[in-house]
Amino acid sequence: MDFEHSERSQQLQREVRAFLADHVYPAEHEFEEQAAANRAAGTPFRTPAVLAELKTEARRRGLWNLFLPAGVSPADGPELGAGLSVLDYAPLAELSGRSIALAPEAMNCSAPDTGNMELLTMFGTEQQREQWLRPLLDGEIRSCFSMTEPDVASSDATNIATTITRDGDSYVVRGRKWWSTGAMRPECTVAIVMGVNDVDGPRHARHSMILVPLDAPGVTIERSTSVFGYDDGPHGGHGVIDYDVRVPAENLLGPEGGGFMMAQARLGPGRIHHCMRSLGMAERALELMCTRTASRSTFGQPIARHGVVQEWIAESRLAIDQARLLVLQAAWLIDTVGVKDARTEIAAIKVAAPRAASWVVDRAIQAHGGAGVSGDVPLAEMWAQLRTLHLADGPDEVHLRSIARDELRAHAPRD
Amino acid sequence: MDFEHSERSQQLQREVRAFLADHVYPAEHEFEEQAAANRAAGTPFRTPAVLAELKTEARRRGLWNLFLPAGVSPADGPELGAGLSVLDYAPLAELSGRSIALAPEAMNCSAPDTGNMELLTMFGTEQQREQWLRPLLDGEIRSCFSMTEPDVASSDATNIATTITRDGDSYVVRGRKWWSTGAMRPECTVAIVMGVNDVDGPRHARHSMILVPLDAPGVTIERSTSVFGYDDGPHGGHGVIDYDVRVPAENLLGPEGGGFMMAQARLGPGRIHHCMRSLGMAERALELMCTRTASRSTFGQPIARHGVVQEWIAESRLAIDQARLLVLQAAWLIDTVGVKDARTEIAAIKVAAPRAASWVVDRAIQAHGGAGVSGDVPLAEMWAQLRTLHLADGPDEVHLRSIARDELRAHAPRD
Amino acid sequence: MDFEHSERSQQLQREVRAFLADHVYPAEHEFEEQAAANRAAGTPFRTPAVLAELKTEARRRGLWNLFLPAGVSPADGPELGAGLSVLDYAPLAELSGRSIALAPEAMNCSAPDTGNMELLTMFGTEQQREQWLRPLLDGEIRSCFSMTEPDVASSDATNIATTITRDGDSYVVRGRKWWSTGAMRPECTVAIVMGVNDVDGPRHARHSMILVPLDAPGVTIERSTSVFGYDDGPHGGHGVIDYDVRVPAENLLGPEGGGFMMAQARLGPGRIHHCMRSLGMAERALELMCTRTASRSTFGQPIARHGVVQEWIAESRLAIDQARLLVLQAAWLIDTVGVKDARTEIAAIKVAAPRAASWVVDRAIQAHGGAGVSGDVPLAEMWAQLRTLHLADGPDEVHLRSIARDELRAHAPRD
Amino acid sequence: MDFEHSERSQQLQREVRAFLADHVYPAEHEFEEQAAANRAAGTPFRTPAVLAELKTEARRRGLWNLFLPAGVSPADGPELGAGLSVLDYAPLAELSGRSIALAPEAMNCSAPDTGNMELLTMFGTEQQREQWLRPLLDGEIRSCFSMTEPDVASSDATNIATTITRDGDSYVVRGRKWWSTGAMRPECTVAIVMGVNDVDGPRHARHSMILVPLDAPGVTIERSTSVFGYDDGPHGGHGVIDYDVRVPAENLLGPEGGGFMMAQARLGPGRIHHCMRSLGMAERALELMCTRTASRSTFGQPIARHGVVQEWIAESRLAIDQARLLVLQAAWLIDTVGVKDARTEIAAIKVAAPRAASWVVDRAIQAHGGAGVSGDVPLAEMWAQLRTLHLADGPDEVHLRSIARDELRAHAPRD
Repeated sequence: MDFEHSERSQQLQREVRAFLADHVYPAEHEFEEQAAANRAAGTPFRTPAVLAELKTEARRRGLWNLFLPAGVSPADGPELGAGLSVLDYAPLAELSGRSIALAPEAMNCSAPDTGNMELLTMFGTEQQREQWLRPLLDGEIRSCFSMTEPDVASSDATNIATTITRDGDSYVVRGRKWWSTGAMRPECTVAIVMGVNDVDGPRHARHSMILVPLDAPGVTIERSTSVFGYDDGPHGGHGVIDYDVRVPAENLLGPEGGGFMMAQARLGPGRIHHCMRSLGMAERALELMCTRTASRSTFGQPIARHGVVQEWIAESRLAIDQARLLVLQAAWLIDTVGVKDARTEIAAIKVAAPRAASWVVDRAIQAHGGAGVSGDVPLAEMWAQLRTLHLADGPDEVHLRSIARDELRAHAPRD
Repeated sequence: MDFEHSERSQQLQREVRAFLADHVYPAEHEFEEQAAANRAAGTPFRTPAVLAELKTEARRRGLWNLFLPAGVSPADGPELGAGLSVLDYAPLAELSGRSIALAPEAMNCSAPDTGNMELLTMFGTEQQREQWLRPLLDGEIRSCFSMTEPDVASSDATNIATTITRDGDSYVVRGRKWWSTGAMRPECTVAIVMGVNDVDGPRHARHSMILVPLDAPGVTIERSTSVFGYDDGPHGGHGVIDYDVRVPAENLLGPEGGGFMMAQARLGPGRIHHCMRSLGMAERALELMCTRTASRSTFGQPIARHGVVQEWIAESRLAIDQARLLVLQAAWLIDTVGVKDARTEIAAIKVAAPRAASWVVDRAIQAHGGAGVSGDVPLAEMWAQLRTLHLADGPDEVHLRSIARDELRAHAPRD
Repeated sequence: MDFEHSERSQQLQREVRAFLADHVYPAEHEFEEQAAANRAAGTPFRTPAVLAELKTEARRRGLWNLFLPAGVSPADGPELGAGLSVLDYAPLAELSGRSIALAPEAMNCSAPDTGNMELLTMFGTEQQREQWLRPLLDGEIRSCFSMTEPDVASSDATNIATTITRDGDSYVVRGRKWWSTGAMRPECTVAIVMGVNDVDGPRHARHSMILVPLDAPGVTIERSTSVFGYDDGPHGGHGVIDYDVRVPAENLLGPEGGGFMMAQARLGPGRIHHCMRSLGMAERALELMCTRTASRSTFGQPIARHGVVQEWIAESRLAIDQARLLVLQAAWLIDTVGVKDARTEIAAIKVAAPRAASWVVDRAIQAHGGAGVSGDVPLAEMWAQLRTLHLADGPDEVHLRSIARDELRAHAPRD
Repeated sequence: MDFEHSERSQQLQREVRAFLADHVYPAEHEFEEQAAANRAAGTPFRTPAVLAELKTEARRRGLWNLFLPAGVSPADGPELGAGLSVLDYAPLAELSGRSIALAPEAMNCSAPDTGNMELLTMFGTEQQREQWLRPLLDGEIRSCFSMTEPDVASSDATNIATTITRDGDSYVVRGRKWWSTGAMRPECTVAIVMGVNDVDGPRHARHSMILVPLDAPGVTIERSTSVFGYDDGPHGGHGVIDYDVRVPAENLLGPEGGGFMMAQARLGPGRIHHCMRSLGMAERALELMCTRTASRSTFGQPIARHGVVQEWIAESRLAIDQARLLVLQAAWLIDTVGVKDARTEIAAIKVAAPRAASWVVDRAIQAHGGAGVSGDVPLAEMWAQLRTLHLADGPDEVHLRSIARDELRAHAPRD
């Protein structure tokens, strides 16, 4: 196990830190104000204008699309992707998590587009790449990912009921999806939809993915779901979408029946990103907890000197450091043995990192008193986002179940 | 210890249950829609119209002001207050918590007005009662309570910096308060403000309370703070208020220097209410968890049959039942020995009940998957409200500290 | 719910407190020394002599067999049993838990004899009562209970493999049992053995119980199992017993096939006893934690003033009080609706009380530093005993499963 | 961060695994039997004979003194120490923890001798090394470490009250120590004693260490303390020692006033050892949990298929892996920046690793039912040892406090 980051990654870490300090943190307040103004104007899903400026600056600095490894497909030229290993990108993802509302998107490294770009890089046809990958890489359009369904327990992905049926030169997509994050924003023009393509196929080979333009007739974006009380408007909300739509057969992404395989491929690096961003949030929260408690006093001494608060701070450090090492290990495994053989470790971080981060942020909230639950500090919103990570891409319990089965297989072969 | 509820309380429980089933639950959806419409119309702090109908119905059924004990002051005639003991009111508060957004206010039993009405009943002059208590009891106006301040750590109440200074026939109130819940709604016309009246007085006798009309010159309601993304608009938000105002000397509530004493008196029964409502939320959440998990399947069986989910359900039952018994014990103590001698137990429930309820609601969220964090089920909003209870009226840590000191005093007299 | 203890119970509480203070606490050290001397002499399972003195004194004071309710069987005259309700006995059990090694046995109220005496009272024939109940009530002999088996997972009681087979005028008992607590002491002369009597009978009606004299040919007490290093010698250890024995048919206890039913009947009040004793241990541990931390200093102040330790103390108070109320509720239910209808609540306390007590004792250990894990204070031994209660009479998980099923049945009838 | 183990370390890991499989595991039962026989013979502190055989075999295989880095002092020739980095030794320590009672001592790598040998290597004079280090390295004698005192709260090391007073050519050592692990065994001939040498010196420079032969007049080994119910006899128990003894001045170890500095130096690598052995215990426990639950059934399926048990298994994997990575990071830091600059990380693992291991072992106990708490499987004894690690070398709370202070210093410089 060698978690040493390359010289290039270390240089980029310095550059991202400078970008955060010089541009991102100072823009946070403006972002909030613009978002509030958009809401007041009845356009909550409009992207706050300051984000465009940050994107320009990030791109100017070369802090753009860093998430995308080079050469993911033989056809890729060197111009595609920053060429960082997953391990090398990990600390950059963490840094971006420190300003979760602005930094990832400013650097064109925000979910769900990152995963969609990866899929298009790996499995997209020339035409699909030209039509969707190129503008996504340029930050000109946004995309969403339609997998979860409101009417079934999606934690068991075999429950997915949306159908993708071949009919001549087209596929007919029928079903209802939700948690299509980003779908509400005007720039979001395309969805990758997962559905059942061959209902009688083998359990893990009956699903496919298909690209559906959101302006196609038969695509109805019904509404957006909130997260705790947040509309997540500046990030395009979370669309509830009814699909009853016909798309050209060439919109199929990857092979028929390849849905599960591609979902797995998409999730590997994506989980590293999610987890590292979570830890970035946690580091920011811990910092806020320290500075806040050092600056206010109760019962005759700074809050930071109360034993219980010190225990929160120390436990936060313990939780973050342990979770980060686990994520780095998973990243290193993806780089060295591949997503498939890092499966257990990827499941493990999916549970461990949001848990650690949630705990830290919750304690930071408590340390802030009433301010903590309000919009005056970023903690409550961080917490809400982290809470969803215990459910998104499969609830904790499903991942724990997988880990247990692998463990049992190792020790008790008969199971 | 006798936690048996009187015949009258039992009868009222049946009636409240019927009122919930016949009127309140069916109105929940309409309430949400009206609140959304108000937001869309730029008037988020307007009370949804359905609430007025519910109030009329509740009053018609005699389910009105049940929280107020009779005869709290010698001057009270029998017409004032339902005359229920704290123990007898407790299960009614729990029932109202099952529809937390509607039921408490529908029955004119919602915070912070209940506490304010209690204060006015106990300490108000004839004139104060006429001017403010009467319309509050009639549900015609609303009130807020201004104690916490944004610039100090209010968990140590001696940090309060707002001043209440006598000047001739007036008092001048100067300071900045927040978490003045309800202040944003049009019906809210008066605040009870706590401030330092005698900066050199004994530590717990230097604060006073005063009644400040919100339309008085020098009262500036700056904005409302949100709670985990929720504006709490239908309940009047949480006002940040700048006071630089002169009010007549007869607006002083209770004696000069009596602020702490009155705050304590206010908090006793109020905590029973808060805690029982919390447990009502928890019961509703547990019910939702059971019905949801029984109706959806993963991995070949109903979610409710998975061992981990069963453990959540069982632990929820354990947590709720233990917390409820503790609250009932505190209620019984308030009835039998008074708020002062039930101090430790009141501190204990302040920690135990929100903790139990938060845990249950969190597990119910997890059991609901994506729906759990959304606005489609009431769980996320419940959770956010419960989270604030770990901070409101003093953070958990302050209460635990008091409990520990009492315990140490009992066993280690030298401390 | 009325948890008020009767005047008689309150009087007995005062008397038990006096007995503890005057005789039991002062004898604790001597008991330990005698137990050590017995071990050194190679007779670890001999009962320390001081216990006999305490028994004499307890009986003299009328603090004897208090656990046994009067009139449990129509045939009982008033002389049998103290006639206390389960609720009234509960605080006496708690008090005895404060000196767990001495007090319960001194008052002839120690497990497993209490449960066995209850069974004999309820189901014993005249002859069985004469032969075994009478000397047990007089504290002249001891008994053990052979249910758990080393070779199967006894948490599912239907796994029990020992057979009880009718053969002419006898039953032949064949099987291997362990955790037959008390079996190693010389005074232990009889076991109640549970086994399968009708292998094809209905799942919960195929087991029976039978009385087996330990000196019968074919009873082999192989050895004693330890508990976290403790031999539990002064209490007769925990026998591993091989049964290949023939006993007269009249030794059958209760009806054929009644094993499960009797086990349930036995467990109801027994769990109240166990749980209340656990809380007695916890109270003693909390007291020790308070006095110890108040008397030693680190980093410039008494340990009791460190915030983290205060949190332990406060959380201990919360945990104990909540668990106690739950146990009292279960006791009250047994008294008012019977063991069967209190089933869920009895399962709940089985989990809640040992958990609360274990937590408190663990924190008391931590607060004592090295002394905590040693034999110099009673905490480590308490902890070990409490740890077994998470397993004895069914592991926590089995009880949680039952509670969940009852909850689901209430809310989701289709399950 | 590069946690890759060297080729030599990997080779040694293979060899230790083979040694465990071929010799150690098969000897575990014999060891227990010999220990029991020793106890029965009244010589509980005699080392079971099988250990000597294992030592011979380990030495023959070159698995001896692996803990000792080469060249720790300029005067060392290459013959001293295996020359492994702390990181390289870490996995060997973990492996030895899998058979905690036998393997560490068999390879002459057991505490407290390892720490004492390190001290003698680093600070011993030629004569001290000849007299004590040499036979310790040869496994001919054993040593103990006398730091903790029964009469003060040693978690604040400045409380230490034992005095080391210069008097002519001698030092007079006066004080009472306990938890001098290993002192009861016949082979233990020397103690390193920590005491106050200059009561007016600077707070962290007033303590010294001195070598005291246990047969010197004035050394009274009063008794051994137990750990839970274990006498830890085969490992020499835990001596309570009264020192009122005069030793030659040349017995002083290191400089006067160097006690704290040396204690810190001793603790760095020692904590890595303790923590890795803890994780070895946890791995063994997890393995036992898997095999046991896969082989027994309840309610119609193997216990290993019950969701709750699967969650334990998965959480165990998560806990172990995270803790191990944290320990490896600390080891790597000791190797690269030294003990002093790895201070925070060393404090962190002291809390994290025993906590993880305790949790895993506790769940393994629960999964084993009654067997888990008994002596039939090694789990209960493991647990007891792990429990002491939450106290030994400073309780968790003291380490958390240090971590918090470092964190606060980083973020809130005024603290």
